[in-house]
Amino acid sequence: MTAPLRCASLQDARVVIVGLGLMGGSLAGALRGKCGCIIGVARREDTVQAALERGLVDEATIDLHAALAQADIVVLATPVRVILRQVAEIGPLLPEGCLLMDLGSTKAQIVAEMLKLPPHVQPLGGHPMCGKETSGIEVAEPGLYQDRTFILSPLERTSPEALALGEALARAAGAAPLVVEGARQDFLVGTVSHLPYLLACALVRVADSSTSHDPLMWKIVAGGFRDTSRVAGSDVTMMLDILMTNRRQVGQALHACIGQLQRLVRLVEDGDEERLREELAYIRQTRKEMYP
Amino acid sequence: MTAPLRCASLQDARVVIVGLGLMGGSLAGALRGKCGCIIGVARREDTVQAALERGLVDEATIDLHAALAQADIVVLATPVRVILRQVAEIGPLLPEGCLLMDLGSTKAQIVAEMLKLPPHVQPLGGHPMCGKETSGIEVAEPGLYQDRTFILSPLERTSPEALALGEALARAAGAAPLVVEGARQDFLVGTVSHLPYLLACALVRVADSSTSHDPLMWKIVAGGFRDTSRVAGSDVTMMLDILMTNRRQVGQALHACIGQLQRLVRLVEDGDEERLREELAYIRQTRKEMYP
Repeated sequence: MTAPLRCASLQDARVVIVGLGLMGGSLAGALRGKCGCIIGVARREDTVQAALERGLVDEATIDLHAALAQADIVVLATPVRVILRQVAEIGPLLPEGCLLMDLGSTKAQIVAEMLKLPPHVQPLGGHPMCGKETSGIEVAEPGLYQDRTFILSPLERTSPEALALGEALARAAGAAPLVVEGARQDFLVGTVSHLPYLLACALVRVADSSTSHDPLMWKIVAGGFRDTSRVAGSDVTMMLDILMTNRRQVGQALHACIGQLQRLVRLVEDGDEERLREELAYIRQTRKEMYP
Repeated sequence: MTAPLRCASLQDARVVIVGLGLMGGSLAGALRGKCGCIIGVARREDTVQAALERGLVDEATIDLHAALAQADIVVLATPVRVILRQVAEIGPLLPEGCLLMDLGSTKAQIVAEMLKLPPHVQPLGGHPMCGKETSGIEVAEPGLYQDRTFILSPLERTSPEALALGEALARAAGAAPLVVEGARQDFLVGTVSHLPYLLACALVRVADSSTSHDPLMWKIVAGGFRDTSRVAGSDVTMMLDILMTNRRQVGQALHACIGQLQRLVRLVEDGDEERLREELAYIRQTRKEMYP
């Protein structure tokens, strides 16, 4: 038995967004005017003020418990391991039939934690595929979710109505909802998101420990370096939580990548042109098919 | 003794650009109207036609020898190993006092080949730090060089007047000339340009051999993957020539990067949060200082 939703219509729902950083602040701004009321919750009073001044929320507070009391939908927009803690803490405080969502970048552990929620709550994992290499409410913008994929990971106990409400929320933010099971999404993002981050980190490290001692380096860095290193500027707490809650998948992707680099360096050092050409041509073709 | 320039003023110079792909075609378009005459040389008649139709050149031909006969400046805009061959071939055909430049991405081997040119030629290595992951005259655009660094690698035999003419050419194309000795530039671009290319290649390969079998992957790829993999779409012949003429530096950069990735994967797999946080914070700060 699953609890019927407290409010099945997004237009009438009181939506509480916990965490007003880049992701939460942007979601609030994107949903404002499309829901009954958007209430933002932050830890710091100055974030509350900033959210109100920027018009991203209808109301804002640092009092989490008070905000939850009347919530129809709660969205946890904090780092993954804060989400894990909050899911456990706030379950008993949520009103009957409340939809509890999150925006965490890894899903398997969060969904496992959501499984333990009391039966009067409707849980739904979420992961919007957007972001920036900067963080904080200062860089929040309502257009962030526009045309991006918004992964939803329902649990077995999630009712069709709860999933539909989550999909409506994703669409209202401008995104395209996509249902993906938690473990499967973690495997995929390990390669398409966490691996590029660590490659960017390694690249910055290599440049830092060799060429960057040459003052000319900064005059010659071209677009390739800038693009490949961009995500190395991502928020550290957020990325640490992501890596720590997806260790196995990230480890696999990294080992696979190290293996590929070892193959490539061998071909370069051996001067094995024929095989290197074949390899680079195959990769170029594959990239073209990825982004036609 | 070095030969005086045949024509020391860019405005009056007949500039022959050999190779009308992305780099040569764009340079032609950027310089047209700022020189006496821009003559493009291509291997294929349809490239000649395209260059004329797109208004990138004043004249164009497939007859290299005829074009060289009256040249004040010759710019070789072909792949690195074609440049190596052309430098050796055309030296004796160039008029007295002609400036011979190139746009090759690696410089040490080209500069070594230029050293052997007959004394009546003024040689100057060049490497504009711009490009695209697409190639061919279809994608050439006169704005490509705008505000980019244009590396110039003079030889000991290059006269100050010849270097000044090369600098004037770079500026006329909208770029900022920067004098860097050949071997030093190869070391720098090994890390800031060739390494990002190979990281992009490895990333595409990993995705191709694991997650890309899941049809959902293509719905969830986010900006990080797109940006980090972008340069894997670069022209294969161009990149092969670059890698083969910079093997030692590329090998060093790759080994350093593999070492960094092995450190990172160990921290992730050991769950060594404290050191991983330190490491990621240091990298984030470094990236921020790179692009303030």
